[in-house]
Amino acid sequence: MAVKKRGQTFVYSNPPHIVAHASIVGPEESRGPYGEYFDLHCSDTKCGKDSWEKGEEQMAADAVNLSMDKASVSAADVDFLLGGDLLNQIITSDFVARDQDIPFLGLYSACATLVEGLLLGAGLMDGGFADCVVAFASSHYQTAERQYRTPLEYGVQYPPYKQFTVTAAGSYVLGWTGGGVWITHGTLGKVMDLGVSDPNDLGSAMAPAAAELILQHFSDLKRGIVDYDLILTGDLGKSGIKMLTVLLEEKGILLSDKLMDCGAEIFGGEKKYGAGGSGVGASAAFVGSVIIPRLISGELERVLLVGTGALLSTITVKQSETIPGISHGVVIEKLPGG
Amino acid sequence: MAVKKRGQTFVYSNPPHIVAHASIVGPEESRGPYGEYFDLHCSDTKCGKDSWEKGEEQMAADAVNLSMDKASVSAADVDFLLGGDLLNQIITSDFVARDQDIPFLGLYSACATLVEGLLLGAGLMDGGFADCVVAFASSHYQTAERQYRTPLEYGVQYPPYKQFTVTAAGSYVLGWTGGGVWITHGTLGKVMDLGVSDPNDLGSAMAPAAAELILQHFSDLKRGIVDYDLILTGDLGKSGIKMLTVLLEEKGILLSDKLMDCGAEIFGGEKKYGAGGSGVGASAAFVGSVIIPRLISGELERVLLVGTGALLSTITVKQSETIPGISHGVVIEKLPGG
Repeated sequence: MAVKKRGQTFVYSNPPHIVAHASIVGPEESRGPYGEYFDLHCSDTKCGKDSWEKGEEQMAADAVNLSMDKASVSAADVDFLLGGDLLNQIITSDFVARDQDIPFLGLYSACATLVEGLLLGAGLMDGGFADCVVAFASSHYQTAERQYRTPLEYGVQYPPYKQFTVTAAGSYVLGWTGGGVWITHGTLGKVMDLGVSDPNDLGSAMAPAAAELILQHFSDLKRGIVDYDLILTGDLGKSGIKMLTVLLEEKGILLSDKLMDCGAEIFGGEKKYGAGGSGVGASAAFVGSVIIPRLISGELERVLLVGTGALLSTITVKQSETIPGISHGVVIEKLPGG
Repeated sequence: MAVKKRGQTFVYSNPPHIVAHASIVGPEESRGPYGEYFDLHCSDTKCGKDSWEKGEEQMAADAVNLSMDKASVSAADVDFLLGGDLLNQIITSDFVARDQDIPFLGLYSACATLVEGLLLGAGLMDGGFADCVVAFASSHYQTAERQYRTPLEYGVQYPPYKQFTVTAAGSYVLGWTGGGVWITHGTLGKVMDLGVSDPNDLGSAMAPAAAELILQHFSDLKRGIVDYDLILTGDLGKSGIKMLTVLLEEKGILLSDKLMDCGAEIFGGEKKYGAGGSGVGASAAFVGSVIIPRLISGELERVLLVGTGALLSTITVKQSETIPGISHGVVIEKLPGG
């Protein structure tokens, strides 16, 4: 039997394809440098609904439905959904699943949730338990801000290293044929805490977990940076990727121009967004709409997608807890001969 | 190759054993009719810490550590942890994982979270991705009450169908040898919403999902109630199991004396606990400490454990959303010849 785990890394013997994906973004993300890449655009942050929370739910539902349409699968074809988001009790994802006649597995690892869904879905497919799964995730600036920080109406001033939650959702249909790319490996990360306590500085809270995940992945597979065209993090922001670069340089790994961060990219260089975007919706929308086309076109051949999550709640911040980070990774590759 | 899925049910071709388990409960649960069954008892609800949240974290950590001790495994032996709880951002589980040098997969399906962990862990083991995993979950009356409802200091009066969150944690080590019982099947449930909107009546919100899960499980495996010694729900409470009984009778299934609910049992008949206990800690502690010994002794041979979760947040209640339920199931059986 093929070896299916090396250290913390799943090695899929039958790597599932990403058959189709769909993204939807809010108005500010639509105006950003990648705006035209995304499938769907909301012209208002409530997406035509009467609350931001209902708007986020609508966006996630639209992403799931469009990804299934693109893959030409119906609810009866999908073995289960894997979903999560940043709201308390992952209620966006719960409610998206309510409207689908498909079993649902709820996940939470903050902004690493999409990657957790992809690596679990691929593992259960490779294990023989499914032939088609849908992994999705979302985040929303207004719903996250009022839940985690202060109501927007207060007009609080933020430090320049603050990231801004991206209003976006993405959905991925995994199956056995088509799509042009597949998921070949998944690396599971540990929760790491280096003592960051500022809830506006999540990039610094997550960077150590991301560095550890990349080192572990390389070690497990006896690979190095030379074996990848891109290390794509989601979402460390501009200050987080600086710290990641330093942490890896200390271990002799020079990412040079092979590092990209979904959050740092999505709004471009505009100063009003501080250190850039955050939120699991950023990677959920960006990977499918920006990176997978580059794999299909042959511009990239092998990408390590590193989801990065900061583990905090409003209560832990008030109780003066530090903020640990977690990171999970998947390798997305162009199909051989594809 | 063996068929590993039938409908919504995983059929494990190499069923993992529950090698060891550990439970810890709070003071009121310790005084209940099953108090002596549990491994560890906290004499105060803060478990010696300076907040209820830190107390819940300590309880969950104690359960994880004791289960690993009982199984004689160290962190290096465990491929990953699967955990979740009821607090926002599953922060209890995140923080438990922070103190373990083991990869972590965060899960959320309310009070079905333990079962989600068991069925995913068993699936990934059977799929070749792990040889040892730990699934854990916790809940806590004081932390849940002040998060979901009102601060206890308000002294709100509750209706008699209200359930009381159980202060407890449980942890399960899955491996390939020993332990006396194994997990042979896992059935994934869909999110169901029949329009319940009272956040004190979660039993009614969850019962339809539980009924659907049981019917689906029987249909997938061409089995009936005659094939099980016990259907164990966690946690519908006393009003929820009445509704479940009616819903299944309508489909011609008479559970008669084969139905037990962890929440309805854990506090006994005492009126002050309304419809009984709820919270994922109830099933997490009860299954290992009360039911698995009955399987090992031969009193029971095959149990269908049905985790039941109510999907709500404080925001959805305020926004007048209804409360959907979700249910996942696993079959726990006495080892053949064991």
